[in-house]
Amino acid sequence: MTYPFLKGHGTENDFVLLPDPDGTAHGDLAPDRMAARVQALCDRHAGIGGDGVLRLVRTSAVDPAETGGSDAEWFMDYRNADGSVAEMCGNGTRVFVQYLRESGRDTGDRITIATRAGDKTLTFDGADWTVDLGEATLLGETEVGVGHYTWPAQHVSMGNPHAIAFVDSLDPHGPVGSLLEAPDHDAAVYPEGVNVEFVARVGERHVAMRVHERGVGETRSCGTGAGAVGVAAMIGDGAIAPATYVVDVPGGRLRVTWTTAGRVLLTGPALIVAAGETDL
Amino acid sequence: MTYPFLKGHGTENDFVLLPDPDGTAHGDLAPDRMAARVQALCDRHAGIGGDGVLRLVRTSAVDPAETGGSDAEWFMDYRNADGSVAEMCGNGTRVFVQYLRESGRDTGDRITIATRAGDKTLTFDGADWTVDLGEATLLGETEVGVGHYTWPAQHVSMGNPHAIAFVDSLDPHGPVGSLLEAPDHDAAVYPEGVNVEFVARVGERHVAMRVHERGVGETRSCGTGAGAVGVAAMIGDGAIAPATYVVDVPGGRLRVTWTTAGRVLLTGPALIVAAGETDL
Repeated sequence: MTYPFLKGHGTENDFVLLPDPDGTAHGDLAPDRMAARVQALCDRHAGIGGDGVLRLVRTSAVDPAETGGSDAEWFMDYRNADGSVAEMCGNGTRVFVQYLRESGRDTGDRITIATRAGDKTLTFDGADWTVDLGEATLLGETEVGVGHYTWPAQHVSMGNPHAIAFVDSLDPHGPVGSLLEAPDHDAAVYPEGVNVEFVARVGERHVAMRVHERGVGETRSCGTGAGAVGVAAMIGDGAIAPATYVVDVPGGRLRVTWTTAGRVLLTGPALIVAAGETDL
Repeated sequence: MTYPFLKGHGTENDFVLLPDPDGTAHGDLAPDRMAARVQALCDRHAGIGGDGVLRLVRTSAVDPAETGGSDAEWFMDYRNADGSVAEMCGNGTRVFVQYLRESGRDTGDRITIATRAGDKTLTFDGADWTVDLGEATLLGETEVGVGHYTWPAQHVSMGNPHAIAFVDSLDPHGPVGSLLEAPDHDAAVYPEGVNVEFVARVGERHVAMRVHERGVGETRSCGTGAGAVGVAAMIGDGAIAPATYVVDVPGGRLRVTWTTAGRVLLTGPALIVAAGETDL
């Protein structure tokens, strides 16, 4: 028994997509079997490989308790590579709607999808997709460390916790290092762990970052991290909303806009690179 | 423009397969463009992901200088993930013939394929494939080290160089460690680097190994490494040929047979897990 899949990524945050319009391909699986399938799909050697799975299912085929009763046509059922259910993924939303567009399921330039974190509306400018990440909450100053080095850091919440340290260099041979281990942080400030972003200034309204995601390690891109970093950089510069900053991540380039209404918009590419069938 | 691909693995040594029977899909690409395509396909985030690419092309469609004038029907054009051309890959041969079998291109239980290291004949026992890796050459004793620890090691050539150290435990929290860096070795013995295998005894005729492949890092499996380890374990036990040992690797289980003729046979699974189209 095989089923269709696609592989795609947004700034190299990569996903296995599972089209499942009426929920009959995967929606009836018991939770433990679905978790096992997600693990098998995301396994980078024995499977297809991905940071997570994006299941595309019509909202009408999902329990309203999960979709929040959304009347958007499509629900993004996002799972982490370990099989756990996740609320949202900024880079994933772009890949999700790019598939809707390429497959002809929704060719609009403005698509609202349901997620476990509520409806998200994405807009297409002909090249990139923009998603509204919501409001950033600034929670003061803290500190992060790697080995013998420590840096002051901004505590920013984008729904999830971030510690943002401005550094002179992102060079893995410099103080920031290889990020193979989680940077030191204040456990009293971040009782559930923290995503740590190291940021270097590249030019005017332009920064570059590396990120250590809690429970994952260094990744090629983190959408909420880029959003938090953009906001922290704007505050450091005394920028006045609306402002747009370029945030380079190891996997590509994102743009972050802070609106006069205090919303954080994330703009970036989304690519579908392969499509096929699997029996994983 | 899309072209077909498959994803498969042997003990989690994984490959992107490119069916190209008449050589028109990829065979006409300039070397630098083919290298770039292989890199794009093997990229684990922006591509499909794999340790290498197995292009399946009829020998008649390849320059005899490359196939050695083989009269086998199929040529295994193997490329490393970095795009470089490689001679052979033991785990790859099994995946290659498994595809020939599943696709109906050759349903025999005994298939000879051409490789850059000469013809290789594989046999199927209904579950696993066996490939003849050739002769092992025993080259004496050397030493390997990790941090403050050193171990005596056997120098074995399987066409490529191996240093095999028997240890009490493969635990990454023990002396062998995380293998994130190449173990120390005698550069005079191994001027071109070495694949280092750490081996623990599991039971009678049964060992387990971890391997650091030169230029790659720790891998889930190494076919020639398993062959060299099997031979080293047999010699340590004073085993008399023919003998068969089980060699567990992080990605699964292999069997190694040392024949009375001095040949090393590697037996293991091969799986095709996905098939599709890509434009990478």
